[in-house]
Amino acid sequence: MSELRFDQIRKRWVIIAPERRKRPFAICRIDESEEGECPFCEGKENLTPPETFAIGFSGRKPDTPGWRVRVVPNKFPALKSDINLTKLHESDYFLSLNGFGYHEVIIETPVHNYPLWERKIDEIMDMFVAINERIKFFYKDRKIKYVLLFGNYGKAAGASLSHPHSQIVALPTIPEIPKNEMDSSRKYYIKNKRCLICNILKEEIESGARIVERRNGFIIWEPFASSFPFETWIIPENHECDFSNLNNIEFEKMAFILKDALLRINKFLKSPPFNLVLHTSCNLNYINKKERDIIKKSYHWHLEIISRMTQAAGFEWGTGININPIPPEEAAECLREVKL
Amino acid sequence: MSELRFDQIRKRWVIIAPERRKRPFAICRIDESEEGECPFCEGKENLTPPETFAIGFSGRKPDTPGWRVRVVPNKFPALKSDINLTKLHESDYFLSLNGFGYHEVIIETPVHNYPLWERKIDEIMDMFVAINERIKFFYKDRKIKYVLLFGNYGKAAGASLSHPHSQIVALPTIPEIPKNEMDSSRKYYIKNKRCLICNILKEEIESGARIVERRNGFIIWEPFASSFPFETWIIPENHECDFSNLNNIEFEKMAFILKDALLRINKFLKSPPFNLVLHTSCNLNYINKKERDIIKKSYHWHLEIISRMTQAAGFEWGTGININPIPPEEAAECLREVKL
Repeated sequence: MSELRFDQIRKRWVIIAPERRKRPFAICRIDESEEGECPFCEGKENLTPPETFAIGFSGRKPDTPGWRVRVVPNKFPALKSDINLTKLHESDYFLSLNGFGYHEVIIETPVHNYPLWERKIDEIMDMFVAINERIKFFYKDRKIKYVLLFGNYGKAAGASLSHPHSQIVALPTIPEIPKNEMDSSRKYYIKNKRCLICNILKEEIESGARIVERRNGFIIWEPFASSFPFETWIIPENHECDFSNLNNIEFEKMAFILKDALLRINKFLKSPPFNLVLHTSCNLNYINKKERDIIKKSYHWHLEIISRMTQAAGFEWGTGININPIPPEEAAECLREVKL
Repeated sequence: MSELRFDQIRKRWVIIAPERRKRPFAICRIDESEEGECPFCEGKENLTPPETFAIGFSGRKPDTPGWRVRVVPNKFPALKSDINLTKLHESDYFLSLNGFGYHEVIIETPVHNYPLWERKIDEIMDMFVAINERIKFFYKDRKIKYVLLFGNYGKAAGASLSHPHSQIVALPTIPEIPKNEMDSSRKYYIKNKRCLICNILKEEIESGARIVERRNGFIIWEPFASSFPFETWIIPENHECDFSNLNNIEFEKMAFILKDALLRINKFLKSPPFNLVLHTSCNLNYINKKERDIIKKSYHWHLEIISRMTQAAGFEWGTGININPIPPEEAAECLREVKL
């Protein structure tokens, strides 16, 4: 069974997940050619655990063909939902929870070689609808504090299967990075009665140096302190803390801008491996109204696209400081100039 | 010129280092065979910038053969010391320093294929002496707040040249990870008048489950919340905040235990790529006595060995939580059983 351990020295969580050793190339990588039968292709529904959500033809039975997006539990989960959340250790030295949580896979398309940026707008929207439904479902569970949606595309970005898919992990704790984002936003809001990111975006739009595109209320932005070359954020111009509050009209606009960003990155960098990371608000359903209001007004959701061309080594793991050889102003200029 | 930018949203530093694009395989990897002439081999001293420190035969002239350890400025530095430390941006939204600092390479041996674990004890001690001298030198500069010693061994660990070398970066700010370590140690000390790590080690020695070896006042330890498979700490049993306070007798003991740990890891994992990271105290020379005393009593230096068998992907970069498939208790057992 997995265990969520808290590092009392470095003040961060780690998931000890022995089950993950069994997954495809957990430790040693496999070649694409060794993959064999793809469990995510249409017609191979019996190779995955039973689906938890799908979008498909009406009248379609679960775990049969005819779907456009399909969500299934991860076969090698980092966290499991069929156990009771329990503290295993609790002291100044050792603190841990059992590995309670959810870990699902969003099979974004039935077609094996059909990357995100080539898809039609309504196909990208299907993926957003699935993400949205699952976030809402997980946030009904009061033990879940945070949900992370992420995608690993390309082997160097950590993909174990090449069929386009992303993953959702629902956690009983708020992880360090979103927590830091929420804390700095909260602190700024308490002082200024404004959202930190809204104010940063206002300055960014004025200068324009790090803006790639601005369209239908969404911005493609290279942040001032980008940790990775061509780190790109898709961010709504108007304040909103929660991705799952978006409606279909907004999903359509979001699909257009995401496709735009990925096409630019893909064209300029020639199909780099990349990660997608969605930072949305924590579970607001079970916290008091005052705190909920502060988070709603202070936190600003965004989707991060991380091109994986550099490699973290001793310096990065020892300091927490990434070295990024490409200034975001230069990245923005390159991406602005791409002809779509 | 490099720039140290502070991420006001995620509260962490990043180094924007355009010069690093020129270094060997900054972005694209090269094959070993393409390396050509090794600039770190004896007799090739003219291929590096002039040395800043060396241990060699008496009467040897700088930048000539006859050395055992040689320290030179990094040819593709992340930070530079020939500029004045200056703030470039300072607001709630954008904060940055110019890239002032030091970035040096410790060429650990004149011999190209001579890994750390095969070296004689006095050869390993030479390396410690060089590290020690450079830390002391950098900490004479009041603009330097923190020095990180790290090593990247093997390509998957980020090594750009295969000749054994480690690196020292001296920074005008304390990075996030050592800062978190210092903060948690400080907080615990204020409350308990004891060092957090001393107390953890006491419990660890009693249980024994995560101890690999205990010898001459040093411990080989797999921490409770190990972020990586076989993450291994070399740590002094008695309290000491600063690696550079060690004397030659302690360096000898430290060389024995480091060689022991690396031999075990190397034998069990079959020459894995790995990083070394030294976490020692920040620059204590220019802070007030009260604060200096607290850090001296609360912080506990250690050397981390990070085997690089897993890959950070979307989940890790989106949360700050690493997934480690090998429980440290299991890693400790495997390493204890290795016959040296």
